[in-house]
Amino acid sequence: MKSSIATLISDFGLSDAYVAEMKAAILRHAPGVRLIDITHDISAQDVMAASIALQRALAAFGPGTLHLAVVDPGVGTRRKVLAVKINRQVVICPDNGLITWAWRLFPHAKAFELTWRPGQFSNTFHGRDIMAPVVGMLAAGRPLNPLISRQIEPVHLDISPAGPSAKFGQIVHIDHFGNAMTNLPATHFAGKIRTIRLRGKSIGIHKTYSDVKTGTALALFGSSGFLEIAVRDASAAKRFSLGIGGRVLVAKMARKSAT
Amino acid sequence: MKSSIATLISDFGLSDAYVAEMKAAILRHAPGVRLIDITHDISAQDVMAASIALQRALAAFGPGTLHLAVVDPGVGTRRKVLAVKINRQVVICPDNGLITWAWRLFPHAKAFELTWRPGQFSNTFHGRDIMAPVVGMLAAGRPLNPLISRQIEPVHLDISPAGPSAKFGQIVHIDHFGNAMTNLPATHFAGKIRTIRLRGKSIGIHKTYSDVKTGTALALFGSSGFLEIAVRDASAAKRFSLGIGGRVLVAKMARKSAT
Amino acid sequence: MKSSIATLISDFGLSDAYVAEMKAAILRHAPGVRLIDITHDISAQDVMAASIALQRALAAFGPGTLHLAVVDPGVGTRRKVLAVKINRQVVICPDNGLITWAWRLFPHAKAFELTWRPGQFSNTFHGRDIMAPVVGMLAAGRPLNPLISRQIEPVHLDISPAGPSAKFGQIVHIDHFGNAMTNLPATHFAGKIRTIRLRGKSIGIHKTYSDVKTGTALALFGSSGFLEIAVRDASAAKRFSLGIGGRVLVAKMARKSAT
Repeated sequence: MKSSIATLISDFGLSDAYVAEMKAAILRHAPGVRLIDITHDISAQDVMAASIALQRALAAFGPGTLHLAVVDPGVGTRRKVLAVKINRQVVICPDNGLITWAWRLFPHAKAFELTWRPGQFSNTFHGRDIMAPVVGMLAAGRPLNPLISRQIEPVHLDISPAGPSAKFGQIVHIDHFGNAMTNLPATHFAGKIRTIRLRGKSIGIHKTYSDVKTGTALALFGSSGFLEIAVRDASAAKRFSLGIGGRVLVAKMARKSAT
Repeated sequence: MKSSIATLISDFGLSDAYVAEMKAAILRHAPGVRLIDITHDISAQDVMAASIALQRALAAFGPGTLHLAVVDPGVGTRRKVLAVKINRQVVICPDNGLITWAWRLFPHAKAFELTWRPGQFSNTFHGRDIMAPVVGMLAAGRPLNPLISRQIEPVHLDISPAGPSAKFGQIVHIDHFGNAMTNLPATHFAGKIRTIRLRGKSIGIHKTYSDVKTGTALALFGSSGFLEIAVRDASAAKRFSLGIGGRVLVAKMARKSAT
Repeated sequence: MKSSIATLISDFGLSDAYVAEMKAAILRHAPGVRLIDITHDISAQDVMAASIALQRALAAFGPGTLHLAVVDPGVGTRRKVLAVKINRQVVICPDNGLITWAWRLFPHAKAFELTWRPGQFSNTFHGRDIMAPVVGMLAAGRPLNPLISRQIEPVHLDISPAGPSAKFGQIVHIDHFGNAMTNLPATHFAGKIRTIRLRGKSIGIHKTYSDVKTGTALALFGSSGFLEIAVRDASAAKRFSLGIGGRVLVAKMARKSAT
């Protein structure tokens, strides 16, 4: 299967040539592939943020899309490299938990150890030297099988969508606007649950930002499908000093305690 | 008309997957369109900055180009979505004033209410769910007519090029280098006007940065065609603490008063 | 020769339309060329940083690639514009030293004065008005010869790879992660040299980050082929307050003195 789109995620930033070097390595094999940057502004070594971005990329793009995700603090160690078949797409990434959020949300995923290596490669930039060429080869229509060995269970981060009876959720991502995405799926909320509690405050669940006044906090089901905490026309993260891992209380259960 | 180029402007930043999600929505309809980012670093909800960037995109690209501009604090309210035929190109954007600067500078523009909606869409991300698919459909050669209803007068920001007899201009944009672009068009300046006044200081009008010494302030007609305030090899915005809306005095008129 | 890839380097940042305006100028001539951003986050007027990024782009991409590099504080002065044939690729850039690092590393380069000018052009944005159209014409398959005059010796920055007997190297680039790249090539280090000295401290040379503990400083031959100073999972630049030009002592020679 020849693929027409390859996306890229990394923590390389945009001030060096690193991202372009990965693109060059892909294009060498697949001059016609379309390259789409998801983000390269993942904080240095923030595997969890990359994991969220990767899941969104997998949700947005169609079957056959290839994804190269390189947040790789373990480069040069014995950490494996993965090729993951998931949501009818293929992800190439280090085996350090980066696949976790997508793995939790898309069923029937299969992970394989990527064993292909070039004749020569650096000890510090496997994104360019190993993973990008593989993406290029796949984009050019070469089969995956000769590049992998056995199916494996990938390393996972300690992060999951909240279960149906969970009394707490947790913040898994803070976006550019300061909106805080939680791990509480829309399905978690019965019709009766109209508020959540955050740092002792009750916050109403609404449909969209404009349901409240400018400067007012609200919760809503954002474009992610998960509950998000926002402040209209402002940053919820700043207002409430939110950080990854922060607890959000599902209010029906929360008469007495509050985070 | 099948279009080969679609540009994107937003305030989404580059640290989340949002921009890529819009691109995915365009590519689903038009796999062959070329996507060009104008900027995604518009300050959150800064419709005016987006308006300037959009005008420059319309000036730079050729007939048939599509432009998706999403700075959309009113998402989820009753604010309309626009399809604007302008400078032989098409802009899709929220009807919140974003079209203003282009509307002022290009004649014969026509704005239509975009009424197409997908079967399902989020309340918080119309850029991805409504506007990007429309750009994709247009890029794929589908006609605009079935997607719009009537011609309307768009919402406008309070910003215009200074008229020919204006004694003051105002700063409308501050760029990456700290150069301040005003709304004073080159045509405003007769041969005799050789200086402007800014915060009580007289500043000479020159042809290019190197006409003055390093560290010296100057005014010049920048690549925008409007008068710009600069400091050679430094930031005029920092030097003079400039901000959007700041007044610039056309010096011929300005013997006694100064901003 | 029709070229399929053109890369871009600038100090324009990503918050204005400038980069897109250059791309529009290229695409007007060569609608089918693939555009790859190397970086636009070069610090304002930092010709040396652009020089390093350009060399990496030339190392990464294949024969026939075109490179547009615009860090141009001298725009509007008599500084020349260059067309450089180097590593079987072509660079268009101002003649201000930007070519230096590539010129030092790739043999057989030839620089020509680019004399083509459009009928009309701004005094402040030759990247868009002169250099980008030339890249577009070359990408479209037009010959270089009619656009240039004579072969010239380009302006050079005071920066070179350290010679084989140098006792000191110097820091030439600090990357997004705070790794400091020096001008000491791998070939400089005999088997016996196992440490370098930096600000009075001895730092071991290793193969990869994970050879030391988190938080420990190390030197290694990074993806650039030059010695780099790093701290595992942290920023060497912050830890040691490193800056461009900082001296690194080759330890075999360094019994008594230290920077």
